[in-house]
Amino acid sequence: MNSRERFVNMTMLTDFYELTMANGYLSAGFRDTIAYFDAFFRKVPDDGGFAIMAGLEQIIEYLSELRFTEEDIAYLRGRSCFSEEFLDYLANFEFCCDVWAIPEGTVIFPNEPVIKVRGPVIQAQFVETAILLMFNHQSLIATKANRIVRAAKGRAVMEFGSRRAHGADAAINGARAAYIAGVAASACTITDVVYGVPATGTMAHSWVQLFDSEYEAFKTYAENYPDNCVLLVDTFNTLKSGVPNAIRVFDEVLAPMGYRPKGIRIDSGDISYLAGKARKMLDEAGYPDCTICASNSLDEYIIREMLTNGAPLDSFGVGERLITSDSNPTFGGVYKLAAIERDGRIIPKIKLSENVAKLTWPDSKQVWRLFDRETCKAIADVVTLNDEVIDDSKPYEIFDPEFTWKRKVCENFVAQRMLVPIFEKGRLVYELPALETIRNRCKASVDGLWEEVMRFENPHKYYVDYSPALWETRNRLIEEIRSQQKG
Amino acid sequence: MNSRERFVNMTMLTDFYELTMANGYLSAGFRDTIAYFDAFFRKVPDDGGFAIMAGLEQIIEYLSELRFTEEDIAYLRGRSCFSEEFLDYLANFEFCCDVWAIPEGTVIFPNEPVIKVRGPVIQAQFVETAILLMFNHQSLIATKANRIVRAAKGRAVMEFGSRRAHGADAAINGARAAYIAGVAASACTITDVVYGVPATGTMAHSWVQLFDSEYEAFKTYAENYPDNCVLLVDTFNTLKSGVPNAIRVFDEVLAPMGYRPKGIRIDSGDISYLAGKARKMLDEAGYPDCTICASNSLDEYIIREMLTNGAPLDSFGVGERLITSDSNPTFGGVYKLAAIERDGRIIPKIKLSENVAKLTWPDSKQVWRLFDRETCKAIADVVTLNDEVIDDSKPYEIFDPEFTWKRKVCENFVAQRMLVPIFEKGRLVYELPALETIRNRCKASVDGLWEEVMRFENPHKYYVDYSPALWETRNRLIEEIRSQQKG
Repeated sequence: MNSRERFVNMTMLTDFYELTMANGYLSAGFRDTIAYFDAFFRKVPDDGGFAIMAGLEQIIEYLSELRFTEEDIAYLRGRSCFSEEFLDYLANFEFCCDVWAIPEGTVIFPNEPVIKVRGPVIQAQFVETAILLMFNHQSLIATKANRIVRAAKGRAVMEFGSRRAHGADAAINGARAAYIAGVAASACTITDVVYGVPATGTMAHSWVQLFDSEYEAFKTYAENYPDNCVLLVDTFNTLKSGVPNAIRVFDEVLAPMGYRPKGIRIDSGDISYLAGKARKMLDEAGYPDCTICASNSLDEYIIREMLTNGAPLDSFGVGERLITSDSNPTFGGVYKLAAIERDGRIIPKIKLSENVAKLTWPDSKQVWRLFDRETCKAIADVVTLNDEVIDDSKPYEIFDPEFTWKRKVCENFVAQRMLVPIFEKGRLVYELPALETIRNRCKASVDGLWEEVMRFENPHKYYVDYSPALWETRNRLIEEIRSQQKG
Repeated sequence: MNSRERFVNMTMLTDFYELTMANGYLSAGFRDTIAYFDAFFRKVPDDGGFAIMAGLEQIIEYLSELRFTEEDIAYLRGRSCFSEEFLDYLANFEFCCDVWAIPEGTVIFPNEPVIKVRGPVIQAQFVETAILLMFNHQSLIATKANRIVRAAKGRAVMEFGSRRAHGADAAINGARAAYIAGVAASACTITDVVYGVPATGTMAHSWVQLFDSEYEAFKTYAENYPDNCVLLVDTFNTLKSGVPNAIRVFDEVLAPMGYRPKGIRIDSGDISYLAGKARKMLDEAGYPDCTICASNSLDEYIIREMLTNGAPLDSFGVGERLITSDSNPTFGGVYKLAAIERDGRIIPKIKLSENVAKLTWPDSKQVWRLFDRETCKAIADVVTLNDEVIDDSKPYEIFDPEFTWKRKVCENFVAQRMLVPIFEKGRLVYELPALETIRNRCKASVDGLWEEVMRFENPHKYYVDYSPALWETRNRLIEEIRSQQKG
């Protein structure tokens, strides 16, 4: 059996401490203890104003397929630290948690729960690693890709990064996340096969090198793909060789066949300068409709700079800096205990930590987004206790959780619950949306933000506030722990 | 069929242009044309002095399993740009290339071939994406992990990053690469099941929160794992609550059971300060053998700083900054055409590019490493034409490829061929080493470097030089292309 076949069952993709804790919970009598966990993040990558939720479909798949094989049990028994009672529990494992989440493609903000798990603590704890891994990865890439797409201002962005991705999943699911965020296509063929993300691509430098001359290479390509002829013009010299040879092939091969060229691609050098010169040459040769595609270590900043400088570029191939989120390759999602149930009653839980930023929000919660009825723009998110209802027929006062004197009364708004049911007692109750639906949701969700929140530098901080009841719950817990420590 | 099952056959994990080029090669009469491709990289991440080769085993697995399913063929037919002849070729695809590579765990340097593929251009081109993806990913993580391990100066480093990895493969194969590079263990359980990388872990903050008190949480853990009792002491307050509760449990639970504590872990706050205070408290309580583990966004710089400051730390849990190589998350390996064969003769090929750094080295090549016979340290790498032999019974003059007047005569050295046969005409001829063997090779290979090459900042640039014959081949090709462009 090769390693990849063994990857198919991903149940054991879990930190070892989830298992030592689970074993301990069982032996300590917590078998039926119900716990609430929240997944949330603390900081938007690249100091941006918002992130994009992604990876939920893969989380659902993981949770749907949770089971421990005989081989897994044998491995765990071999570690000599798990009770037979626990191994027996795992052998008969059936996922029975409730799960809520903010749907994929939605704009999300720091310090609000984006996934919420309620169930037996053994199970709800166990799924931490995989939930975070899939959420963190795809949300990271979707957030970065959306920045790049916005920088391109309506021009097509193509995801070209498979070769620099952190393994197969990073390439495949990374391309999926990028597509959700607005990328037009991906070079990654298997992502098209699996998810229907349009795969695209034409030629590498090796194609050009293989022939005895660049002209011959272009000619052969045009003959084979007259309706999708994009020529890579920088193998030898863009302006002296690449563009002239391309034009000659457009004239001598495509024109007689009745086709217009689709484009040229520039992958090195001073692309703004070369594109300007190439544009002029193409226009003068009668090909104003021939597009120019730029690639080579692009990101949102370089694309913005090139377009600001007036570079006549029509599309962008973006590789490593998108698929690794190079400028900020970590999405810091965490998964924290928020409450347990005892005798049917919720006991909120908190973690204080030495770092104030790591303080958690206790209790079972809901996230509400308030939209202005007139502009349809998002005004604020409010995190409440789960059973609270924000009545949008009345004014609602929000306050800053850090600077509580900062208050704002919202009026004429619609309040929407953001966490929707995914699993009920382990049964999937969520209808998985088509990828196009998720992509459209992403566009609509980003369009619902004010421009100020979308800035790359120093974006306006979107309000994520907390209801007075939740606020008081947290303060009460902090006081309780303080007095325990004094006592 | 869910998406993960469809990932098992990874053949289609390829950039779409590999397919459009392959189809074009076939129709242009290159079906039997033999090509040589080199995989190499141009820059060591983090401006380090060397990288660690990794990912070869996964590349071998990929190449061994190459086949196009009916579903793949149907997908490609649906794209309406491939000839039936080509689809037929793919349906009967049998990998028949020769492959050479530098073994995993070996120290590697910029601008020398680390993998070399010779075979029908359609095949040799097609495998580009997957080869680069697997090489780039694992070499990136191995290189970063080795820096972190070196910073820890003999103390154990544990890989804790699964939750921040870029998907499942990034977690699993990333942990494998980190282990090759010297990490002692990983939190990623499945990596132990699949590869035998020791999985480790004890408790999260949620364990502590779940109980009514920290003391009770520690007590229960100690009762369950008396022989591996590592307590996380920063959930509420490290010095006022965590360490005192830990000591109480060591006294009241472990001591009566006849066990010594294994350690405490600090995951937040000013770890150097807290560790110093905790060390004193533990020593005074009679536990000088209780280790202190640090975690929380560590990397080689922070670890070096903490140890320089004398922080009494015994081990490190390193997460996101290792598993994403956060400070430099891209390994820039490329795959370039170096030659073709015509009538049994090798025709070297070159790519000029607008960026001088992107100029390639033509022809079929070998890489030699010269070791000093006395110190056993590596002196230089020399890239030669494939058939050249470096006779280590005689002095050998090396020269800098950029500053050719810089010359050095090597004497009393052993010359070792670095590229070894992996596949011969598609047949695997390489015996896959055990993971421990690769890990030992890594240690030996790094130990073979001078200290100056190992510096984190401004490392000495290790010599990677080129034989006069190869040098002349390249200059001749550049001149030929120049004169073509003038003509």
